[in-house]
Amino acid sequence: MATAIDFYFDFSSPYGYLASVKIDALAAKFGRDVMWRPILLGPAFKLSGNAPLIGQPLKGDYSKRDFVRTAKFMQIPFQLPAVLPISTVAAARAFYFLHDQNPALAKTVAKALFHRYFAEGVDITGVEEVVAVAAQHGVNSATLAAALADPAVKEKLKAEVAASLAASVFGSPYIVVDGEAFWGSDRLDQIEAWLAHGAW
Amino acid sequence: MATAIDFYFDFSSPYGYLASVKIDALAAKFGRDVMWRPILLGPAFKLSGNAPLIGQPLKGDYSKRDFVRTAKFMQIPFQLPAVLPISTVAAARAFYFLHDQNPALAKTVAKALFHRYFAEGVDITGVEEVVAVAAQHGVNSATLAAALADPAVKEKLKAEVAASLAASVFGSPYIVVDGEAFWGSDRLDQIEAWLAHGAW
Repeated sequence: MATAIDFYFDFSSPYGYLASVKIDALAAKFGRDVMWRPILLGPAFKLSGNAPLIGQPLKGDYSKRDFVRTAKFMQIPFQLPAVLPISTVAAARAFYFLHDQNPALAKTVAKALFHRYFAEGVDITGVEEVVAVAAQHGVNSATLAAALADPAVKEKLKAEVAASLAASVFGSPYIVVDGEAFWGSDRLDQIEAWLAHGAW
Repeated sequence: MATAIDFYFDFSSPYGYLASVKIDALAAKFGRDVMWRPILLGPAFKLSGNAPLIGQPLKGDYSKRDFVRTAKFMQIPFQLPAVLPISTVAAARAFYFLHDQNPALAKTVAKALFHRYFAEGVDITGVEEVVAVAAQHGVNSATLAAALADPAVKEKLKAEVAASLAASVFGSPYIVVDGEAFWGSDRLDQIEAWLAHGAW
């Protein structure tokens, strides 16, 4: 199998969620696997001078409308969470902890977390909520709760965020196919063409 | 005929150029006309806190690559101008001056200016270049050069920019279809669906 596609995202990113619903099936059409890489956009925003869309004058109001409209256009269940953005440290730590043991389970839980936040509108900031979502997929709650406070797990996420900055990841979703970077859920069409026909 | 689609853009905007090549044909498929509305993004950026893409850390380098890649994907001739962004006051004034006399000619010259800058890579900041491009479409050079310094023409552009700010236009391209705003050349697919099926 060819190299995996790198899918960088923040669990608090609406366009990251939209891409997450589509990216695995898109890649699978071309026999490609996807490595999910949750990051924290805060440090990237500091480097790039960006800021969360929703708080920006004019663009913020437009974005709220565009999230909803684009989700419907892509036929993806979506509701605008009451609180956006949120801290996604617990969700991202949970992903990397689970990934070390069972990559498929980590992805399943990541999808469930995204769904909980953006399809059901439930805040996933808290450890309790992350643990509860994971429990629905068979993850032991006490084990996960302990892991989220484990210094080694904290370090793992820090290292992943640092690696994403070193790779110039500045937004979400940020998808790298064979060294070519695509930013935004509205680049899925180009990613598909790239996978089908190669570089142009 | 239904209400015209409003197409706001800055002549210095690569994605504005990409949309400009497609928007009239797209609208015509649904019996719709397009009102081109060149603006100056500087004032909009002041209000929205935005900045030209190309000067932003990380995002700037990505954008340069994305302009080229997206143009090829859309099968539109493109080369990255040596100077970007530029002041587009002369180009925008020329458009509104011509529009008052001959809307079709104004659009033709606008397309030629966009082509000169983004397909041929020639800077269109200067009055001389704007006048030369317009002359290729039969516009009298002395008349246009005088118009570009005419206080009434200057006021017209100021009024158009003020109106765009009042309409919350914060970027380029910014396209309004029956009150619904779409930002970016990557929203042309949604505009087509909107025109075909109405609001969703």
